[in-house]
Amino acid sequence: MEKSLPIPVLCRLSSLYDYLTNLHKKGVSRISSNELGMVLGQTSHTIRKDISFLGAAGTAGTKYSIDDLLALLTDRLGFNQVKKCCIVGLGRIGSALMEHFSVYDQQEFRLVAGFESNINRLETLHSPIALYPAYRIEEIIRQMRIELAMIAVPPQNAQEVADRCCGGGVTGILNFTPTVVKVDNEAVFIRSIDISGELRVLSALLHTSTTIIQQPFEKE
Amino acid sequence: MEKSLPIPVLCRLSSLYDYLTNLHKKGVSRISSNELGMVLGQTSHTIRKDISFLGAAGTAGTKYSIDDLLALLTDRLGFNQVKKCCIVGLGRIGSALMEHFSVYDQQEFRLVAGFESNINRLETLHSPIALYPAYRIEEIIRQMRIELAMIAVPPQNAQEVADRCCGGGVTGILNFTPTVVKVDNEAVFIRSIDISGELRVLSALLHTSTTIIQQPFEKE
Repeated sequence: MEKSLPIPVLCRLSSLYDYLTNLHKKGVSRISSNELGMVLGQTSHTIRKDISFLGAAGTAGTKYSIDDLLALLTDRLGFNQVKKCCIVGLGRIGSALMEHFSVYDQQEFRLVAGFESNINRLETLHSPIALYPAYRIEEIIRQMRIELAMIAVPPQNAQEVADRCCGGGVTGILNFTPTVVKVDNEAVFIRSIDISGELRVLSALLHTSTTIIQQPFEKE
Repeated sequence: MEKSLPIPVLCRLSSLYDYLTNLHKKGVSRISSNELGMVLGQTSHTIRKDISFLGAAGTAGTKYSIDDLLALLTDRLGFNQVKKCCIVGLGRIGSALMEHFSVYDQQEFRLVAGFESNINRLETLHSPIALYPAYRIEEIIRQMRIELAMIAVPPQNAQEVADRCCGGGVTGILNFTPTVVKVDNEAVFIRSIDISGELRVLSALLHTSTTIIQQPFEKE
């Protein structure tokens, strides 16, 4: 029954999990694919197809049991197995991530360590999690069996830090730098969040759409 | 000559712009599509195709002039026109974004205002930019002609805040909440960065890949 899930499906199922978790907390017990589609910005067909990947059938109009769906998602996507995370680079973004995730109440991952190369900064940071100098990355990741690393270092250091995290044994990297990070190990998954890049894309979208509107006769 | 750029092309051109800007600062003057492809994680063919959207031709082996490419990108994507931005929600992530972007030295956008509904928090924040209580969102956006809004409020408030930002006149929203935000106005572009969601997707990727490796005979 195990099928490899395409990444877009996995992303949508992850959003579904987040939304259903909130509904569950509010005491809602059943929901239709139509309602889910409306909220998640997908067609009800896509919702049913995604859910069918979990092995649960649903036809148009059917209301899914939220408890059942959450149990399936939790089991299939491994959210019942806490994954240990670390953050490398405790500048503005890194520190905010540290504060954000150290109070994060989900159970699918737990922040357990932070790394920073600037020893002076390391000494001034107040943190609910253990902090270490950056030269100990590999040692601590191996010792604590950390599986996921968030990288929030200056762009020019991103590749080296990714290599060292992989050297320690992480199998997932969330890269917050604009650097395209590569690793030799195919078992390591990398996802990137380029905040300035997203803002730049938005800025370009506004510009190109305006340009087209203003010059309709020049549009191909 | 104006063509509507597909969003994936626009995203890649935006990364290209970022990388070329850094090369330019380092004094590099020419680069080939092969080298660009290596760094940006694309094939050289994709790089040449993307650049052809700008109206610049290149064949395999040709070295592009970095100055020329930057001038084309700047003009075509509107990076010479500063777009004003604001941040709504100055909690952990919002405050980090505020600090990050208030020292940001690129010229394509400028952070000019922050909004926060908690008046006590507003009074304790030290900020290089102007801060306002959240009830003034529409008024200030209109008055300052702000075009882009970053939303970092609690998920349940995201839609209302997006509506009010659009009411003030923004045409681009960068949504940092997991909420799927919708606006009626088709001229408004929305992009989302769901940090916890990305971490959850990574966590699921690790799990599903491990599951498949451990259960090869059950794989379809």
